[in-house]
Amino acid sequence: MTLRDIHVTMAHGGGGKAMRDLIDEVFTAVFQPPGSEDQARLTNDALSEPGARLAFTTDSFVVTPLEFPGGDIGKLAICGTVNDLAVGGARPLWLSAAFVIEEGCEIALLRRIVATMAEEAAKAGLRIVTGDTKVVERGKGDGVFITTAGIGVIPPGIDIGAAKIRPGDAVIVNGVLGDHGATILAARGDLALSADLVSDCAGLGHLMQAALAAAPGISAARDCTRGGLASALNEMAAEANVTVELEEARLPLRPEVVGMCEILGLDPLYLANEGRLVLFCPADQADAALAAMRALPEGAGATIIGHTLERCGAPVTLRTAFGGARIVDMLIGEQLPRIC
Amino acid sequence: MTLRDIHVTMAHGGGGKAMRDLIDEVFTAVFQPPGSEDQARLTNDALSEPGARLAFTTDSFVVTPLEFPGGDIGKLAICGTVNDLAVGGARPLWLSAAFVIEEGCEIALLRRIVATMAEEAAKAGLRIVTGDTKVVERGKGDGVFITTAGIGVIPPGIDIGAAKIRPGDAVIVNGVLGDHGATILAARGDLALSADLVSDCAGLGHLMQAALAAAPGISAARDCTRGGLASALNEMAAEANVTVELEEARLPLRPEVVGMCEILGLDPLYLANEGRLVLFCPADQADAALAAMRALPEGAGATIIGHTLERCGAPVTLRTAFGGARIVDMLIGEQLPRIC
Repeated sequence: MTLRDIHVTMAHGGGGKAMRDLIDEVFTAVFQPPGSEDQARLTNDALSEPGARLAFTTDSFVVTPLEFPGGDIGKLAICGTVNDLAVGGARPLWLSAAFVIEEGCEIALLRRIVATMAEEAAKAGLRIVTGDTKVVERGKGDGVFITTAGIGVIPPGIDIGAAKIRPGDAVIVNGVLGDHGATILAARGDLALSADLVSDCAGLGHLMQAALAAAPGISAARDCTRGGLASALNEMAAEANVTVELEEARLPLRPEVVGMCEILGLDPLYLANEGRLVLFCPADQADAALAAMRALPEGAGATIIGHTLERCGAPVTLRTAFGGARIVDMLIGEQLPRIC
Repeated sequence: MTLRDIHVTMAHGGGGKAMRDLIDEVFTAVFQPPGSEDQARLTNDALSEPGARLAFTTDSFVVTPLEFPGGDIGKLAICGTVNDLAVGGARPLWLSAAFVIEEGCEIALLRRIVATMAEEAAKAGLRIVTGDTKVVERGKGDGVFITTAGIGVIPPGIDIGAAKIRPGDAVIVNGVLGDHGATILAARGDLALSADLVSDCAGLGHLMQAALAAAPGISAARDCTRGGLASALNEMAAEANVTVELEEARLPLRPEVVGMCEILGLDPLYLANEGRLVLFCPADQADAALAAMRALPEGAGATIIGHTLERCGAPVTLRTAFGGARIVDMLIGEQLPRIC
């Protein structure tokens, strides 16, 4: 135990002994990466199976506040990258984690973040195998930013993606929408909102594997993060050249979230989620997919919210409870900054 | 062409149309990643060769200034990750790139950075296959931070690392030391130094492959970034339990760099390099390694700077030009913040 500092200083990013102590005690003691070189060296039999493909993805996380009901930036950083792998049908294997820390950041906060990262990685069944730490001066960052990159393996025979969506597919989500966005908004405390909301942040690797096993005809899936369900559906429908018809009455929304959105003039379809995916599958496999998803805690609220049609007009439309229809467009401008 | 903005705004990070335009026009138009999913899906025959291993590494880059003689943050971000792969004997294959952009950052600057990234990736023979963009408010970042992660393949039979270093190994560097650190220092302009210095920033993948082919007994290599040659050697010597004896007269140093260090009370052995590696190999293969390195521009200045002994006292010592000896310790505290 040689790290006696309470706060991160510029010396912790300088390449010398202080940096080595910070990395050893706060990061590698918890993550326990293999070997001691700057690169992890890895093998996995699934990767050399004929027809298997490697999946590779990255995300930076800049959420504010760093800790919020239901998670922290570390949990987001693991789940976000796990989910980007999972929705492509990949089994997550390994993660990298790079930290840009603002001078003055509390080391105790870093330790808490690292602990949640290790916990989420274990839940997802993967390892954090390599990393990096940089320090920037006070006022040139904001606490800590984390960038994770993930490697997964797509087994032979799995080939899903927006281009595979067909007219007649059922559109399924795994639970209530917008909790993450609403929670962050409430946690910022600059609104007189006190809601008992908790972020939906969760890893969806096991859920996606279960859905694929039960409904092998799944055509595509995506996690509904920044820009919410509406943005994910618009991108996917545009690529598949179909129209997604949502039914308002079927959208799973908490009254607290709907209420908050009404007060603030927001639309819950654009609120960020960090543990929600939207999935397309042939109508005759929808029940099987739903049953498999509902058997897992992160899919307990799984439900069909609409279906796809041959493209007619806009990529995404909503049938309202009153029988009308409206276009659900891409988000224009910003809704909530730094939500993930 | 729908992106008419001059500067990045918070909307460019919001998950909607502005973000899509920024990503499409500034990033994916240049990087041309495969497919349109959030994850890249990749195959490479070398990865499924029996005995091959996957190498995985990441680094964040926070250098200031963002552009400097000899490169910019984008060139650093590619070369840094390529070099972390290369020094382990891996052939770099794929890179991810994640950007944390400060509100107000000039889009023209981003375009220049992205162009140098594409150019360096092509030189290194690899592809930037996936990425991410986040935007933070003015005063919560500093222009742009870039995090790259890299995947490479270590061919069967290659297994190098600090633990393999043996007493009697020759210690080789590929050129003059400290140019990157000195260049950044001069480029900050807060010193009345005007030196015609250029960063050594360069990808070392081809150099490392050539050295390994010529001298298969190479035991270990490392790139000498933050903390400089001295820190890299201390870490490696400690792990191998040997003493590295450097000869001062053989250290390749530019007079301008030595002069700047004398004025500022710095030691060039601790200055950061971004295109320099230190390599250990059996003495009887040193000439072959040198010849192979000198045949490439990035190895033109390759030279032997010392050798290893059974551990006697400190991990790294320096025989001075006057016949004395001094200990070369780990860097204590910080030398130059945000050098990479």
